Amino acid sequence: MTTPGPLSLVPFISVDAMMRLVAETGVERFLAELAAYIEADFRRWPLFDKTPRVAAHAADGSIELMPTSDGALYAFKYVNGHPKNTREGRQTVCAFGMLADVATGYPLLLTEMTILTALRTAATSAMAAKYLAPKGAATMAIIGNGAQCEFQALAFKALLGIKAVRLYDIDSAATRKAARNLSLAGLSVTACRSAEEAVLGAEIVTTATADKARARILTDNMIGLGVHINAIGGDCPGKTELDPAILGRADVFVEYPPQTRIEGEIQQMPADFPVTELWRVVCGEAPGRGDAAAITLFDSVGFAIEDFAALRYLRDRIGADAARLDLVADPDDPRDLYGMLLRSGVAAAA
Amino acid sequence: MTTPGPLSLVPFISVDAMMRLVAETGVERFLAELAAYIEADFRRWPLFDKTPRVAAHAADGSIELMPTSDGALYAFKYVNGHPKNTREGRQTVCAFGMLADVATGYPLLLTEMTILTALRTAATSAMAAKYLAPKGAATMAIIGNGAQCEFQALAFKALLGIKAVRLYDIDSAATRKAARNLSLAGLSVTACRSAEEAVLGAEIVTTATADKARARILTDNMIGLGVHINAIGGDCPGKTELDPAILGRADVFVEYPPQTRIEGEIQQMPADFPVTELWRVVCGEAPGRGDAAAITLFDSVGFAIEDFAALRYLRDRIGADAARLDLVADPDDPRDLYGMLLRSGVAAAA
Repeated sequence: MTTPGPLSLVPFISVDAMMRLVAETGVERFLAELAAYIEADFRRWPLFDKTPRVAAHAADGSIELMPTSDGALYAFKYVNGHPKNTREGRQTVCAFGMLADVATGYPLLLTEMTILTALRTAATSAMAAKYLAPKGAATMAIIGNGAQCEFQALAFKALLGIKAVRLYDIDSAATRKAARNLSLAGLSVTACRSAEEAVLGAEIVTTATADKARARILTDNMIGLGVHINAIGGDCPGKTELDPAILGRADVFVEYPPQTRIEGEIQQMPADFPVTELWRVVCGEAPGRGDAAAITLFDSVGFAIEDFAALRYLRDRIGADAARLDLVADPDDPRDLYGMLLRSGVAAAA
Repeated sequence: MTTPGPLSLVPFISVDAMMRLVAETGVERFLAELAAYIEADFRRWPLFDKTPRVAAHAADGSIELMPTSDGALYAFKYVNGHPKNTREGRQTVCAFGMLADVATGYPLLLTEMTILTALRTAATSAMAAKYLAPKGAATMAIIGNGAQCEFQALAFKALLGIKAVRLYDIDSAATRKAARNLSLAGLSVTACRSAEEAVLGAEIVTTATADKARARILTDNMIGLGVHINAIGGDCPGKTELDPAILGRADVFVEYPPQTRIEGEIQQMPADFPVTELWRVVCGEAPGRGDAAAITLFDSVGFAIEDFAALRYLRDRIGADAARLDLVADPDDPRDLYGMLLRSGVAAAA
């Protein structure tokens, strides 16, 4: 075995290392710090290279690459979406990603992103809600109690001071799982028997269901004045959660309109349906919540800049003791790649 | 530390593992077997999902993602191209990639691809030359003696029986390096002092220079009848190696026209300049070399299907003892990602 050269070693965050980092940091602090990085990158949104995600769609799901760059750093995420996966004990979504140096093209960090995506999705939701939710909101409903549910609740607790969550899922076992986890986190939890029951008294409603269908998780009569809806389950063509009548009554905020019009709730609406880009609200260029009676909707599908911010945060968090992968060939003479191979063969034979 | 579940572990080929695999196999056998996989995928070219590569261009280079799928397997490669890198002891090109299962979206294999790309580029060149080079060719010229040079020579030796190579590089140290390596491999090597000298008597000419410029490595008077040119250095906008007059005299073969018209030698020609897709030649749907006097040109820029084939070959070559990365979160209950995190924290604290 040859000894990898110094340029060949790329810091690597495994699933286990990510879990330890989050556990050591504390989930709520991690979410709050992550949200600050995401907010900072929303503030400089116009300077990012925004490529639509590159998707391969198949019968049972999709595989996507999500690249972006700020000119100095480059990031991409590999992520799938296969709703049927949970029936075989797999994640609906699994992901990994990389941060790289634009000046050299060399990788700076390779990391699992299944857990990191769950965290950044929740952090983005809560960051958006700081600008869009009614002041002093204390109760949120979460409809769809799968893998994203607890992260949502804790991000809203950490960033907005949410005290109570009302949970509903068509699978009561999922609700029991989330209720158990969130009770331990100091939230007041109510398990509900219907979506109608869950939204009662909630100032914020998150929808995070997984089935790929044109669903009506929320119907028009369920949404009163002043509510903020955080819709994250409708995130690909043919997968929506909201009655279009709600969209007609709401002020709708999105990440990147060309992507959201294809993947988000607004795929149900005409191509010129008015939306506000969230980064403009964060920058103070557009109003967020109009008045106490407004219905606000963050039609979130997930965008590459959020992953970029998460990778940037992670890079600042890992220490010199991070594991490293022997991923980049590093011959003594960069033109002598073959010679490196030849010498390794001699070394192997010796 | 928690024990990763069985679904979380992804086979991983490090640089060192790749070098050992190639050395154990033998470079020429590896190239020949790899070429057979590439040829097999050229035979089923129409069924692949062909996305143009997704590039981020900066002042000093580019970073690209190259995805493709045959409907059952999905592959992508991350690859940069930074000609200035060698001045700082880095590779011009470094790469890694992944093979994944379309049905679940789960990764099947993560691997270094700096070495593998060098091998697949040479294997593709030689596979194309089987259809395009004059019968009985025994001498090739290689202009540009960087990291790709030896792989070219050995692929043409393995697949076409090339016996002699004539080398030229503007940097004579690069030529000395390649001559030393190739003499050890049983080839008759001539180090030349000019490109004009290198092409003398060569039936096959490979150009593999690195500078990003509109160069004239080969001028019209240097190319006689019956020669096969394998042009691989001209592979991005603004980077070409051939006098356009040569293109006008040659039968030009390409991988994927929409990409080659932007990146290849034919970027110098009108948009309707006639080319033949190599896969059609491999399938017997289009003629390759017309007659002994024809000048054939493979204007190669590298395409995702070649990487797909290389990843497929690699997957068939690695054994059960391959290293594995803890890359995909694998909770006992796939909806209980947070619970997995919570329990890891308890485990870390214990």
